[in-house]
Amino acid sequence: IETKLPKVGTTIFTVMSQLAAEHKAVNLGQGFPDFDGPPALRDALARAMAQGRNQYAPMTGVPALREAIARKTERLYGCKVNADTEVTVTSGATEALFAAIAAVVRAGDEVIVLDPCYDSYEPAIELNGGRAVHVALDPADFSPDWQRIADAVTPKTRMILVNSPHNPCGAVFDAEDLEALAALARKHDLFVLSDEVYEHIVFDGAPHQSVLRHEELAARSFVVSSFGKTYHCTGWKVGYCIAPRALSAEFRKVHQYLTFCTFTPAQWALAEVIENDPQHYLDLPAFYQAKRDRFRALLAGSKFRLLPVGGAYFQVADYSALSGADDLAFCEWLVKEGGVAAIPVSAFYEDPPAQQRLVRFCFAKSDAVLEQAAERLKAL
Amino acid sequence: IETKLPKVGTTIFTVMSQLAAEHKAVNLGQGFPDFDGPPALRDALARAMAQGRNQYAPMTGVPALREAIARKTERLYGCKVNADTEVTVTSGATEALFAAIAAVVRAGDEVIVLDPCYDSYEPAIELNGGRAVHVALDPADFSPDWQRIADAVTPKTRMILVNSPHNPCGAVFDAEDLEALAALARKHDLFVLSDEVYEHIVFDGAPHQSVLRHEELAARSFVVSSFGKTYHCTGWKVGYCIAPRALSAEFRKVHQYLTFCTFTPAQWALAEVIENDPQHYLDLPAFYQAKRDRFRALLAGSKFRLLPVGGAYFQVADYSALSGADDLAFCEWLVKEGGVAAIPVSAFYEDPPAQQRLVRFCFAKSDAVLEQAAERLKAL
Ligand SMILES: CSCCC(=O)C(=O)O
Ligand SMILES: CSCCC(=O)C(=O)O
Repeated sequence: IETKLPKVGTTIFTVMSQLAAEHKAVNLGQGFPDFDGPPALRDALARAMAQGRNQYAPMTGVPALREAIARKTERLYGCKVNADTEVTVTSGATEALFAAIAAVVRAGDEVIVLDPCYDSYEPAIELNGGRAVHVALDPADFSPDWQRIADAVTPKTRMILVNSPHNPCGAVFDAEDLEALAALARKHDLFVLSDEVYEHIVFDGAPHQSVLRHEELAARSFVVSSFGKTYHCTGWKVGYCIAPRALSAEFRKVHQYLTFCTFTPAQWALAEVIENDPQHYLDLPAFYQAKRDRFRALLAGSKFRLLPVGGAYFQVADYSALSGADDLAFCEWLVKEGGVAAIPVSAFYEDPPAQQRLVRFCFAKSDAVLEQAAERLKAL
Repeated sequence: IETKLPKVGTTIFTVMSQLAAEHKAVNLGQGFPDFDGPPALRDALARAMAQGRNQYAPMTGVPALREAIARKTERLYGCKVNADTEVTVTSGATEALFAAIAAVVRAGDEVIVLDPCYDSYEPAIELNGGRAVHVALDPADFSPDWQRIADAVTPKTRMILVNSPHNPCGAVFDAEDLEALAALARKHDLFVLSDEVYEHIVFDGAPHQSVLRHEELAARSFVVSSFGKTYHCTGWKVGYCIAPRALSAEFRKVHQYLTFCTFTPAQWALAEVIENDPQHYLDLPAFYQAKRDRFRALLAGSKFRLLPVGGAYFQVADYSALSGADDLAFCEWLVKEGGVAAIPVSAFYEDPPAQQRLVRFCFAKSDAVLEQAAERLKAL
């Protein structure tokens, strides 16, 4: 059978997690915490099951969860969101990204993505008949170069996809980025798809620059987030999309035939915990900043050059002092010989810069695991 | 914004469930049980959460669940399935249907669907650039007319979508249908997508005629099922697709970017219960047959003419002795004035037969609810 996705193999996350298991390496590859979220969340889920909340949720999501999302959004970003018409619960952020793309991208449309970028974006665009136009972020600090981005716009450009805090690089937008994005989207009448799954993991006191803070931008955006990163439950797969009513209507037409609805008891549990314990996500920046700082301190004196991390739970490191191999070859060597799994940053590029030598470590791990990894990485 | 899905509104299931709630009607519309599955299932899920199984499952599904599915499939249908390469766990059957379509349907391809059919099929085909070619089932008994189906094949036909036990009509395939389907698919080199979510609800001692019983057919088929109907947990949204290795490889390329993976604790719980308590699904035909028979007995003497039900948990009824209104208008009247929500069968057609007057009642309800509904329906 001829494939519809000739460029796609097994995702790098699966590949590296399998290699990590095979070689009993410390797994700092695929991004997931090795600790659990608040026990109240699991208790609430068990209670929802016991109360018989085991049948289809409404297609748009359990109302209590949509309302909790709307209230949190208004509190944090000053953005009024209508829980009935503008919030849709999905089976993880991945589904929300796909549905937003499927809702507006037509055959022949172009979507601008900023490399390096998450590996689901391009296949989702291609499956919908569109074409991903890759523009590289500034290799110095992974900030967007708005002029280069503007140069990539054509009459076929339908949407631009942004991601802050950024996976894999940990860069974060500032207020000026929002303005530049708004100006670009206005000028060319583009939709914006904003992947904000690390919204609660922003460091050094900076606010998360959600697209929802910018009224004009929000009016043309699909904003995608999820609870996996915030509540240390990446396997729960509850995400959501916030978009203006007309965009949400199109989004929902797709969502209702993609998955229809999402595991009901988790929706009730999340609604309860978001409302009752906002402190959990308010404390998250400090929690992960401590991990970031510890991991960086542990690696001091290693041959890795550590890039700055403004958000998310990934440390990107330059390994050129250790090896001239490309990122994938280096990661394969590192998992086998070094006993540590990482993700090659080149996997997030259409066309990785020839001289760039970068790997991504996930620091959402217990201190003992970070210490063991650092010991191995320093021994290289 | 111009819509990509001009024919799509809110699904009839949502519309009728909302009307049912508004009018405090007995809800025999949207198909879900009003009772829970085995307590062991919820206990196992709570245990999985407590054991820290809250992070990403493997993209293809938790191995124990894939193996349980493979063993059950071999036991029931005599079909050897490789759990590693031929079984993929999805976020409900809806995702599996979409992914199978996205995996093989290209721009301009045609997919034959048999009307009446489930409402997600056509939008999924259209979003992937294909065209649904509707062939009506025999209006007398909703069996497929294989000659009419053969006549609908063109050089563009890529796939045929079948569904037994059938939603909404409760018809089931017999062994001859499998042979006819196999002959057709062979002759025109078609893929087959078989929606078998009601596989464990087949009545009167008949075996479920899974496409997987037929070796040649299985070799070109995506077989989709789920656990929602079998374990009375339609809100859990764990489904799966069984397909030969090459088809599964394409299926997984789509699935990994559609949802990546599915709520992890439910996968562990289902794996455990499928293995430890096969009696649950072996008893299911008798369980639902008793409900079918009770509901039919309760409606004896009503103005509804009840069609035969070979499987699934729906009773289709002809209401022409009561009203000449079309199915949707009748259902709107029935929910408001009659106090019972049903689903108009016309909603499952591209072009409903002008004279046909049919509604679908879901009998996956407690006896008290069935009695209350029947009382209201008999009073009409
Ligand atoms: C869905 S597996 C990938 C997890 C992740 O977001 C990452 O590691 O970047
Ligand atoms: C996903 S809501 C529809 C439920 C169902 O399968 C039906 O009622 O036919």
